[in-house]
Amino acid sequence: MFRINDNYLKLKAGYLFPEIARRVGAFAEAHPDAQIIKLGIGDVTEPLPEACRTAMIRAVNEMGKHESFHGYGPETGYTWLRETIAEHEYIARGCDICADEIFISDGSKCDTGNILDILGPDNRIAVLDPVYPVYVDTNVMAGHTGTGQNNGHYEGLTYLSATASNGFVPALPTEPVDVVYLCYPNNPTGAVASRQTLTQWVRYAQEHEVLILFDAAYEAYITEPHLPHSIYEISGAQEVAIEFRSFSKNAGFTGTRCAFTVVPKNLCGRSTDGSKVPVHELWHRRQATKFNAVSYIVQRGAEAAYSDAGREQIAGLVNFYLENARIIREALTRNGMLVYGGINAPYVWIRVPKGSSSWEFFDRLLNDFHIVGTPGSGFGASGEGYFRLSAFNSRENIERAMERLGSGLTV
Amino acid sequence: MFRINDNYLKLKAGYLFPEIARRVGAFAEAHPDAQIIKLGIGDVTEPLPEACRTAMIRAVNEMGKHESFHGYGPETGYTWLRETIAEHEYIARGCDICADEIFISDGSKCDTGNILDILGPDNRIAVLDPVYPVYVDTNVMAGHTGTGQNNGHYEGLTYLSATASNGFVPALPTEPVDVVYLCYPNNPTGAVASRQTLTQWVRYAQEHEVLILFDAAYEAYITEPHLPHSIYEISGAQEVAIEFRSFSKNAGFTGTRCAFTVVPKNLCGRSTDGSKVPVHELWHRRQATKFNAVSYIVQRGAEAAYSDAGREQIAGLVNFYLENARIIREALTRNGMLVYGGINAPYVWIRVPKGSSSWEFFDRLLNDFHIVGTPGSGFGASGEGYFRLSAFNSRENIERAMERLGSGLTV
Repeated sequence: MFRINDNYLKLKAGYLFPEIARRVGAFAEAHPDAQIIKLGIGDVTEPLPEACRTAMIRAVNEMGKHESFHGYGPETGYTWLRETIAEHEYIARGCDICADEIFISDGSKCDTGNILDILGPDNRIAVLDPVYPVYVDTNVMAGHTGTGQNNGHYEGLTYLSATASNGFVPALPTEPVDVVYLCYPNNPTGAVASRQTLTQWVRYAQEHEVLILFDAAYEAYITEPHLPHSIYEISGAQEVAIEFRSFSKNAGFTGTRCAFTVVPKNLCGRSTDGSKVPVHELWHRRQATKFNAVSYIVQRGAEAAYSDAGREQIAGLVNFYLENARIIREALTRNGMLVYGGINAPYVWIRVPKGSSSWEFFDRLLNDFHIVGTPGSGFGASGEGYFRLSAFNSRENIERAMERLGSGLTV
Repeated sequence: MFRINDNYLKLKAGYLFPEIARRVGAFAEAHPDAQIIKLGIGDVTEPLPEACRTAMIRAVNEMGKHESFHGYGPETGYTWLRETIAEHEYIARGCDICADEIFISDGSKCDTGNILDILGPDNRIAVLDPVYPVYVDTNVMAGHTGTGQNNGHYEGLTYLSATASNGFVPALPTEPVDVVYLCYPNNPTGAVASRQTLTQWVRYAQEHEVLILFDAAYEAYITEPHLPHSIYEISGAQEVAIEFRSFSKNAGFTGTRCAFTVVPKNLCGRSTDGSKVPVHELWHRRQATKFNAVSYIVQRGAEAAYSDAGREQIAGLVNFYLENARIIREALTRNGMLVYGGINAPYVWIRVPKGSSSWEFFDRLLNDFHIVGTPGSGFGASGEGYFRLSAFNSRENIERAMERLGSGLTV
């Protein structure tokens, strides 16, 4: 008689976004003429950069000829892509990261979940709150938590509360932890970590042998010049941090699928007997056994993101979405709302009007203005009273949405 | 202090194919003029079908326009692809499988590993021996085994020995098991399961609530008309079996990456308290949380595999490799060797000459004939004394390899 993984039964009824889809679907069915503008899921809307498309078409054509056909590639990704990434993302910023430490994957979401495969069952896990739900749910699935509580928290996890009072950048944990997920620029709050904040985390991790899982999927949106783009800009981070990066939000690859994860060779964990084990070898083995690399065609598209034309086109995309964020920020501020984020991130984080919950505000925006956002409470207890608007949409939709709010949303 | 997953330390030094690559690399360095012919890894060599390439180029171009750009797709794959698969692979064969039960993924290797996420830790696992190493290694990683033994077996797994004496199709296990991996057409032996064999397994699984993980990645190579192509051709299989399928070996997608896994809605496992839990919901949740679907571009390529042109081109590819297998079979038979497989599978399984081990035969083929194959013992203890040759290569290379052997290989 075969058994299922009981931990799955602890998961809350639905991942946040399916619940949003359900409510939007019900509203759309009841109001077929409503022009709904979706600023909920953080999905890009602008076309794929021409440089990436040209490279992919070339790659498809190569696959049609014997002499340039590509079968299985290296499980960690092609060397030419890993070297290009190392050069542009790390060596250019003075980070001591080489191509061998970069693993190409099909998504940061996948990798932030899969990374738990190589970690032991008894680590004490810390997450920011609000938090990208995947970090929590994958720990629930792996049996690292107790049951879910009414506020959405799970027993056994350490939640580091990020609210306006700490600028959405929580201090170090006061209870002992072994693994901490950091996401900067942050999804959902749009907050970003200063060099000082990251240095504190790296020193803390070095002192306590803590693993930092650093999700930098929104790195491209950092605009302020003094801010670090990679955790490896902090000395010693190679001993304590894994960094997750993606082509989704810069090159618009959400539907094309390519990402990479950096696992430095200096990073060691402890086995049960206390000996040090290089994490790089474990992740390499995991990927070689349970993954088969990203499509050759897509890897060529990702490589082209670093060509002169590719970089220029991506800068155009990022600036476009950041301008959307500016429009949202300014419109809501004029409405008297408190807004955060949206300067080094494509998300604007809103304080919902007093007396209203995140989901009530969601329903109000949907019903009264036909605008979809994401309730902050969906990201964790400390997100209650907040609301996320995504800057990923056409300029026209952003402007129309803000016009609707400007004429009717009273705080 | 963070801990690693100690189970990884139980894994044998290397996955089989990296070890082969190491030996071949050393030989090539010592003999730079040797014309090495690789019949080792089961990787396709022929160009991608024109129908798939045309569809992918169209998809890349769609990604360049606002109105046809695709961001995040459904985590389980696009409906149009799942419906096409359901129609051609299942409904056409009288199998009661619908599009909702099909999950598009980036590889069968990935899915046969990831499926363990949704299973409990105490299942008794059975594998065929010889076995595709991924089934075993992923169970080691998940902590489902004891330590490795000298013959390559791991404590705690049940090995069902497949040798010439049972036609490489083992009987049902005599000790109780909860999960069994079946792979037909088999990698590495090239054996295939009859309708009677599969019916026995389904009845056994129904009686004992056993989960069958049915890897049918080589389904396209089935030539004999009486053989089932899917386990769902057996009534009741929907209650006990998950089927893994791939575009790698039929449409040549090893470097393009697309596969699918069927998890029927009628399939239930037991939670610890004994209640029945639909496995479909668990896998859906797993995929929605830890996966982000396959590139839109690649899914369009996979869809085109089912067009009239696509099906004709794929039939051409499969026939081409099967003709290679026939050439290998006949040449080796003329040499006095015992050969198996290669009729309903792209692998020929050879009995190595008496007194020689699989690895000794590997070294002999490499040193004397500059031909690379795969030692049977690399697939498990019962593979010792056998050797796999892959039919995936150009006709010219297959013929040259057989000429070399014909003039010098004495048994």
